[in-house]
Amino acid sequence: MGVNYFQREDRDLKFVLTQYLDMDRLLSYQAYQDFSLDDFTMVIDEAIKVGKEVLGPVLQDGDRQGCTLEDGLVRVPPAFHPAWQALKDNGWIAVSNTPLYGGQGLPAVIGGMVAELFMGANLSLTSYAGLTVGAARLIENFGTEADHRRFLENMYSGRWCGTMCLTEPDAGSDVGWLRSKAVPDPEAGDDRVYKIEGVKRFISCGDHDLGENIIHLLLARIEGAPAGTKGISLFIVPKIWVNPDGSLGRPNDVICTGIEHKMGVHGKATCSLSFGENGGCRGILLGKPHSGMAKMFQMMNEERLGSGLMGQSLAASAYDVARIYAKERVQGPPITDRKADRVPIIQHEDVRRMLMNLKAGSEGMRGLIAKTFWLLDVAEHDPDQGERARALAKADLLTPVIKAYCSDFGFLLTREAIQVLGGVGYCREFPAEQYMRDSKIISIWEGTSYIQALDLVGRKLPLDGGRVFQETMAEVMDLTGRHQDDPELGGDCKLLFKAARATGDFAMRYMGYFQQGRPQLIALTATRFLECLGEVLTAQVLLEQALIAQEGLAAVAVDSGDGVFYRGKVETAKYFCRNILVNVFARHVSLGQEDTSAIDIPEQAF
Amino acid sequence: MGVNYFQREDRDLKFVLTQYLDMDRLLSYQAYQDFSLDDFTMVIDEAIKVGKEVLGPVLQDGDRQGCTLEDGLVRVPPAFHPAWQALKDNGWIAVSNTPLYGGQGLPAVIGGMVAELFMGANLSLTSYAGLTVGAARLIENFGTEADHRRFLENMYSGRWCGTMCLTEPDAGSDVGWLRSKAVPDPEAGDDRVYKIEGVKRFISCGDHDLGENIIHLLLARIEGAPAGTKGISLFIVPKIWVNPDGSLGRPNDVICTGIEHKMGVHGKATCSLSFGENGGCRGILLGKPHSGMAKMFQMMNEERLGSGLMGQSLAASAYDVARIYAKERVQGPPITDRKADRVPIIQHEDVRRMLMNLKAGSEGMRGLIAKTFWLLDVAEHDPDQGERARALAKADLLTPVIKAYCSDFGFLLTREAIQVLGGVGYCREFPAEQYMRDSKIISIWEGTSYIQALDLVGRKLPLDGGRVFQETMAEVMDLTGRHQDDPELGGDCKLLFKAARATGDFAMRYMGYFQQGRPQLIALTATRFLECLGEVLTAQVLLEQALIAQEGLAAVAVDSGDGVFYRGKVETAKYFCRNILVNVFARHVSLGQEDTSAIDIPEQAF
Repeated sequence: MGVNYFQREDRDLKFVLTQYLDMDRLLSYQAYQDFSLDDFTMVIDEAIKVGKEVLGPVLQDGDRQGCTLEDGLVRVPPAFHPAWQALKDNGWIAVSNTPLYGGQGLPAVIGGMVAELFMGANLSLTSYAGLTVGAARLIENFGTEADHRRFLENMYSGRWCGTMCLTEPDAGSDVGWLRSKAVPDPEAGDDRVYKIEGVKRFISCGDHDLGENIIHLLLARIEGAPAGTKGISLFIVPKIWVNPDGSLGRPNDVICTGIEHKMGVHGKATCSLSFGENGGCRGILLGKPHSGMAKMFQMMNEERLGSGLMGQSLAASAYDVARIYAKERVQGPPITDRKADRVPIIQHEDVRRMLMNLKAGSEGMRGLIAKTFWLLDVAEHDPDQGERARALAKADLLTPVIKAYCSDFGFLLTREAIQVLGGVGYCREFPAEQYMRDSKIISIWEGTSYIQALDLVGRKLPLDGGRVFQETMAEVMDLTGRHQDDPELGGDCKLLFKAARATGDFAMRYMGYFQQGRPQLIALTATRFLECLGEVLTAQVLLEQALIAQEGLAAVAVDSGDGVFYRGKVETAKYFCRNILVNVFARHVSLGQEDTSAIDIPEQAF
Repeated sequence: MGVNYFQREDRDLKFVLTQYLDMDRLLSYQAYQDFSLDDFTMVIDEAIKVGKEVLGPVLQDGDRQGCTLEDGLVRVPPAFHPAWQALKDNGWIAVSNTPLYGGQGLPAVIGGMVAELFMGANLSLTSYAGLTVGAARLIENFGTEADHRRFLENMYSGRWCGTMCLTEPDAGSDVGWLRSKAVPDPEAGDDRVYKIEGVKRFISCGDHDLGENIIHLLLARIEGAPAGTKGISLFIVPKIWVNPDGSLGRPNDVICTGIEHKMGVHGKATCSLSFGENGGCRGILLGKPHSGMAKMFQMMNEERLGSGLMGQSLAASAYDVARIYAKERVQGPPITDRKADRVPIIQHEDVRRMLMNLKAGSEGMRGLIAKTFWLLDVAEHDPDQGERARALAKADLLTPVIKAYCSDFGFLLTREAIQVLGGVGYCREFPAEQYMRDSKIISIWEGTSYIQALDLVGRKLPLDGGRVFQETMAEVMDLTGRHQDDPELGGDCKLLFKAARATGDFAMRYMGYFQQGRPQLIALTATRFLECLGEVLTAQVLLEQALIAQEGLAAVAVDSGDGVFYRGKVETAKYFCRNILVNVFARHVSLGQEDTSAIDIPEQAF
């Protein structure tokens, strides 16, 4: 066990939970009637404890020891084993999953907060749980009762783990080109059982020694199926065969042929897997043939939201390291009095500016993500079907934004933390550099930022004839309209109004470009449109929170703990609007140029 | 020897040299009269060869093997030894230093280009040469004739290496607080010899086995000297004592007590050094007592320019990896025809956008840095004293801009290259992830980006009553005024005009803030002012180059090698103005908010 560097405080998380989100609404649902708000805050307290005592202390061990592949078996960093055992023993694997098969049954928003805490403490280790639950959810949603009994309890308990197997050496972003194939296995006596053959690459947690078995959720093409994504089917492919009664059978001819040597997430095994190299691999078809892509998108969307959360959680951990260091490290006199004594660097304006980036960014993304998980709870449990549909559509709109925006912004914030620490930030004694290394992959996997931007523009903007996007922007406009005369935050509301209008203008122009047959102008700017939307929605969250904090301030002493926290929330919202949200205007000027230089330039000029 | 990943092409370098910079002027100087432009381009060709055959092949070895400290001796990665020997054997250590002591006597601008190539191929290894030459230049400029004979030839040849020893555990950005001390050593029989005692940290190349000796240039306080930077003196402190005749004496009680474990630059030993722990360390005073800080600034400024060059050179290498990969990797059909065959990813708009960031950034910074080295040549060799002074002042203004802007922007570009490569960009088989890891330190050492911004605002803006800055901006305005009606680039000139005006407005407001006693508003925004200036000056360079390319285009076939190159330069300038320079406007909106939230927020709210 190494040093624990995880130092998350509970205050902002609990603010989101008890003052920002409408948790009463969730508590009114049948599914959550056995819970109270106190239960939820207690879960947060416990999860912070697990982060500090179980996951945080093996963060650096995981990075230093890394994963190894020997004799065909991948071993996780040895330090991970007791930590994983502790997660299993205390029911932390499946926090917001059905109690019917061993989950804790907590709302998704609580599961999300626990995930922030666990991933912020140890991204690599937590990934094994995230993928396991994601894979199990696919079986839960699309499998038969028999499938549930065969797999779920062992997965939700963490005894078995799971993966999603999409990527192949020649099919990354281009998943429709995958070559893995499936043929019916008449000998199996079960027409859902197929013989599987194929090679997958970059499979996170693809092989390891944490669980007794690994349940791969794998995309393959049934022989004779159409080309492209429409001919892809989804299979349950256990590493060790699972008999119908849930007992383990024989190894299923799944071989790990290599692990990647990466910049970060060393504790997470990234594997090349060979299925059926010796003709002995079987898989169980999940759902109907050729319906795999749509189903996998359910897990994909969960993982995308989870990826955004990873970006946020590492940024929040980076913020913790930076703010604590900045309070301790003494260097340089104040700029207002160069002859005075040296002061802790948190008193220097530029350090403060960087800390504000970290605070505003990590808290803003936290609120935005929590709001989205809350929507997923509404989408799953609200008695009103219309409400459910609306909540789901909005969550669908937000998912690519959160995936790309939080992974890219989160990465930049880990960089900012290194800069706050200076020379020691570049050294391995502090975890800042590891946070940055771990963070970089997030904008690549589960669909790169560009893939997210295309999803946003091509699939999510048109949702319900554009109404989902319009309603989302209308909410922002409504907020800024109501508070534009606020003596303290009115100016920031006006900035947000302008930024939202500029962001809306992107969408308007895109409609024109579609109609004019100029899709390249969309492709060239789509990632920036996504960033604009991410900033607008984050500003909205922070301003909503600041308005709540303003009210709170009226009722407490300025220098009380709550007073300081509320004042912090108000200043944080101001900071974000005045220093980060303004980037929208630069991107909007750029959009107005309708610049095509990147495609006009001859390819040979590169 | 590993795989070589260094793939720099000569075309843009030679364009800068033969078409952009006024090399005739340099060739007219006495010091360079034995050279021709052909000699210079030949040096570039040779340096590219060295990059590809000597330095590039040990890039990954250096990263994987790293430096080790055993029994008090630091060893560089074993693979570095033959490469260093090759540099020495072929006179590559002191490219633009005086032939009197073994340098090649080439102009600084050529030395800078060679440095781009060498650092782009292998930053860690090249650092040993950079620091050696920087330290030797201090001795050359401030030492006696006897000092020259005692040290220079062995340093310029690379037989001995050098360092700069400023930072102490408790004095980083705050160098005035250093505690290392010096007392006269009456036994030495030379009143320039002092006994040295102190501890230094983060000393790059502070100990290693590449050279036979290491000559430390060290800052210390002579006993009884005033506090702060005004009481600091500069000493030559050899690791092994050097007798007046240049022969080696006894070890000089300099002990390496530790090396840092860092995110990157693993081949560069970052050392903690203890001087005189056993009372046996002697140093030679360089120049007058208490004049050390000003002298060290000469080396510091060279290293700052060199650091900016590092940022640029790694960005350029990252660009090379990305553009070559993007031409080979096939994935996804074009957005204009989703049913077509898959294409190399360079044909996808967003990949192209990222490559344009890399191309515009690395070429723009290259031109800006080359211009600055050119100014240093003028400053050193022009027969006209006024010209020399003007050139030096402008280089002084540009130095902090280049240090901070190119290190921060360069880092972001290495990140962009990873994104182009996708999953493999995150893995160690390609060097993109190493470029990013290596790059991150550059914005920290030799003064952080904030220190550079303070230098720019506090020391460089006021130079010559503000005239240096004003003339620099006037040149930009002049360019944009002359070409605002250019049918192709006129719009970009207007964008640059607006951006320059906004940047000038920062400076104007700063004068107001100074007068109003509101320096905190300056401190909060200074790094962003520096970025604005960096972008404006880079846009200026790229537009100047585009105008030359436009002329060139008139004389060649569009699809000839030159035609493609020139078209590329024109599109690159457009791209930079329309997509990157526009960030100035966001920062300017932010400035206009006069936001103080970062200092108004209570410290306990962090």
